[in-house]
Amino acid sequence: MPILNKDMTLCISLSGRPSNLGTRFHNYLYDKLGLNFIYKAFSTDDIEGAIRGVRALGIRGCSVSMPFKEAVIPLVDEMEESAAAIESVNTIVNDGGRLSASNTDYEAVASLLASHRVDPSLPVLVRGSGGMAKAVVAAFRGAGFDDLTVLARNATAGPALADKYGYRWTADDPEPGAQVLVNVTPLGMDGPQSQVQSFSDEHVAAASVVFDVVAFPAETPLVLAGRARDKQLITGAEVIALQAARQFERYTGVALTSELVAEASEFSRAE
Amino acid sequence: MPILNKDMTLCISLSGRPSNLGTRFHNYLYDKLGLNFIYKAFSTDDIEGAIRGVRALGIRGCSVSMPFKEAVIPLVDEMEESAAAIESVNTIVNDGGRLSASNTDYEAVASLLASHRVDPSLPVLVRGSGGMAKAVVAAFRGAGFDDLTVLARNATAGPALADKYGYRWTADDPEPGAQVLVNVTPLGMDGPQSQVQSFSDEHVAAASVVFDVVAFPAETPLVLAGRARDKQLITGAEVIALQAARQFERYTGVALTSELVAEASEFSRAE
Repeated sequence: MPILNKDMTLCISLSGRPSNLGTRFHNYLYDKLGLNFIYKAFSTDDIEGAIRGVRALGIRGCSVSMPFKEAVIPLVDEMEESAAAIESVNTIVNDGGRLSASNTDYEAVASLLASHRVDPSLPVLVRGSGGMAKAVVAAFRGAGFDDLTVLARNATAGPALADKYGYRWTADDPEPGAQVLVNVTPLGMDGPQSQVQSFSDEHVAAASVVFDVVAFPAETPLVLAGRARDKQLITGAEVIALQAARQFERYTGVALTSELVAEASEFSRAE
Repeated sequence: MPILNKDMTLCISLSGRPSNLGTRFHNYLYDKLGLNFIYKAFSTDDIEGAIRGVRALGIRGCSVSMPFKEAVIPLVDEMEESAAAIESVNTIVNDGGRLSASNTDYEAVASLLASHRVDPSLPVLVRGSGGMAKAVVAAFRGAGFDDLTVLARNATAGPALADKYGYRWTADDPEPGAQVLVNVTPLGMDGPQSQVQSFSDEHVAAASVVFDVVAFPAETPLVLAGRARDKQLITGAEVIALQAARQFERYTGVALTSELVAEASEFSRAE
């Protein structure tokens, strides 16, 4: 075991319910690349104190999850475009005491829409209206999509999200026909709704691109339905790996190959 | 390499100039004993923010070195006897948000006086009047020594230290005759004064116990002179290992054997 040393740079995460994912992803790569860094997940009941500690201890990077993504906004020195666009932070970089906030979920979705060459003229149907749905809808807007419907039962958050980016809202499932289906709800996620397919077979059959933001499991009922019909797939596993990779690159200054991201992602999920 | 995980408990140190010693000592033992802990040294220019971070992040233990040993006093919830007696903190334990401060340097010196069975009726000569000298003199007072002289050129700190514990002060080397010689200055320490023997051969010859608080090197000129004359020796290496062991036990709740302390101490010094 390479014993820890005083000069290691610490990166952390702050969330209400820490998972092991980030800790495993980042530390795996530090070890693999021989970087003198360590990463550790934390929770807190004093987000202001935690960010003050980030400054005082010179903690290099801080990943931010629910319920702190908005609470940290007044605590940082700079909001980068990716965080300002959706008023939500998931990444803080500490440059010698100056804290810059960004949102790599937004960046990851935008990047995946580009790398998968999804045509911006296609009609899009997004199910969900929570924090992550905001990152997703904003990324579609940023990528030039004009025809998007937010499908959400929540009659406050749903129309608010759609309005914010100039899109439509509906509370009820529309007829099949959207070319891009995007699930940003817990439907299909490990837990009580793991068997629920977030869009019907008819919707999937009519679409050309199926995008599920659920990351656990990687193979949700929606992803399986899309694969069975040979649709173009974008998965939550891709989103989570890519956003973590961007955090990694921001914290360390080291760029990752897609092979390394895949390897670290697989390692982080296999526990 | 056992990959780090989210549930690891973090302990840290705060000092103006971190060394690798504590980081190596504690992590070596965590690894050896299979404890889910990590330890990392930090510096800070905002001690109040750092302690607030200790609370907010649930950092379990915090070792405190110069120049923060007094500055943390108003920032903790409880001053234990060992820290209150000398108004100096080197250890903070966080029990669910409640911070208790202690001083394991004081505890280590007190413990060594007892384990080496130094007779409290012997006359003692202590060279030095800094922060560590305070811990040493207080420990002699606590162990029931009545005849002690503080030898220090500093005409403010010297008499203040002696007065505080009801002892004598002198600015000039007295005649040989003290039975217990204690060096708490940098004389003999790695650096410009490494060749200086902190008490003369005549003083060493007349004494029965030689105690050098200097820890680097373990074999100072004073220790070598004492060994050559077959005097009872107490070394700074013992003090530093014992105080670190007490911190370790406070942070983890795990008691250490003297063999483990010696092994970790040797490891921490060998870099």
